[in-house]
Amino acid sequence: MKSHTQYLTLNVGSKMEFLNITTEVEEAVRTSAVQEGLCLVNTMHITSSVFVNDDEHGLHHDFGKWLEHLAPFNPDPNVYHHNRTGEDNADAHLKRQIMGREVVVAVTKGKLDLGRWEQLFYGEFDGNRPKKVLIKIIGE
Amino acid sequence: MKSHTQYLTLNVGSKMEFLNITTEVEEAVRTSAVQEGLCLVNTMHITSSVFVNDDEHGLHHDFGKWLEHLAPFNPDPNVYHHNRTGEDNADAHLKRQIMGREVVVAVTKGKLDLGRWEQLFYGEFDGNRPKKVLIKIIGE
Amino acid sequence: MKSHTQYLTLNVGSKMEFLNITTEVEEAVRTSAVQEGLCLVNTMHITSSVFVNDDEHGLHHDFGKWLEHLAPFNPDPNVYHHNRTGEDNADAHLKRQIMGREVVVAVTKGKLDLGRWEQLFYGEFDGNRPKKVLIKIIGE
Repeated sequence: MKSHTQYLTLNVGSKMEFLNITTEVEEAVRTSAVQEGLCLVNTMHITSSVFVNDDEHGLHHDFGKWLEHLAPFNPDPNVYHHNRTGEDNADAHLKRQIMGREVVVAVTKGKLDLGRWEQLFYGEFDGNRPKKVLIKIIGE
Repeated sequence: MKSHTQYLTLNVGSKMEFLNITTEVEEAVRTSAVQEGLCLVNTMHITSSVFVNDDEHGLHHDFGKWLEHLAPFNPDPNVYHHNRTGEDNADAHLKRQIMGREVVVAVTKGKLDLGRWEQLFYGEFDGNRPKKVLIKIIGE
Repeated sequence: MKSHTQYLTLNVGSKMEFLNITTEVEEAVRTSAVQEGLCLVNTMHITSSVFVNDDEHGLHHDFGKWLEHLAPFNPDPNVYHHNRTGEDNADAHLKRQIMGREVVVAVTKGKLDLGRWEQLFYGEFDGNRPKKVLIKIIGE
């Protein structure tokens, strides 16, 4: 069995943003030399996500508006008890649960086995600091 | 290490529906001859889901009503910017984030290691066209 | 390839609660003797979750309040058709979709490869009965 581990560091200069990381993950798969296996991609943080969806600007706008509606930002510690710790990012912990922590993608014939429109994204909900994404590939 | 890759093609004749695909995935595990490993099942599309829950008709009705409440269908491109592309399925991209893209199930003693009520479903949110589900099994 | 399978039994004495199971999963990784691989942790039930987030009491309060807002408990079978089966836990099936069924964590150098604040939780939404969590580790 082969395995390959790689870490990306991302620094998003705004509170919420979606970055396409498909190319970086494809490169990690090539480096791994795995032909048949599984590729895990996860954020190592609890206020961001890794997910698969469409690389379309309007949709990313819709995601932002929708997540703000479902889990609105509010620094008030009476609204979110988490903000009694001195943080103001409780909403980011909730948004990330909707969008997910990780994706697992099949590796087939040495490549990410993605559908035609599937692209991998890092979703930031509490930006303006460096964050890490883990890529782990196992197989043969 | 063994690996097995299989694709299902599904064509749902309505906008939203939930199909039990447990039998098809169990068959793929038998075909793989893997005794101990992991089985990834994911939709290859960005307006549908693979998830685990109960095979109960009333619950599926509740899922549909609930998802429509959280992420309502609306073709208006002022409501969802994604629909400025000429599509009308922005809501389906949102619904799929709630229900998830994939499941990973353990394979133990040659079988899917599921709890008593766990069943695998394909969740369609933008039907009336053929869609593919990927099954990837690795192990020994 | 090595593999290791372990089941935890949890019995939560309230309807909704979040239990930190990181130590139990770390122990399973040590027992497996896997150095490089993947660790799947999933609930075997359809009214509970396994997820990764922060071990912070205020945040868990916020999760509870937020989930109750998005998917309120209501035993009325006219509100949730699932409750026509004689159950009253339709809301728990919905809450679990938001929080997720499983997590997959990388195993690197013999340890769970978690970010600084990442902790694994069992999320119960229909407690007062014994439930099982599956841990499956594969790798080398």
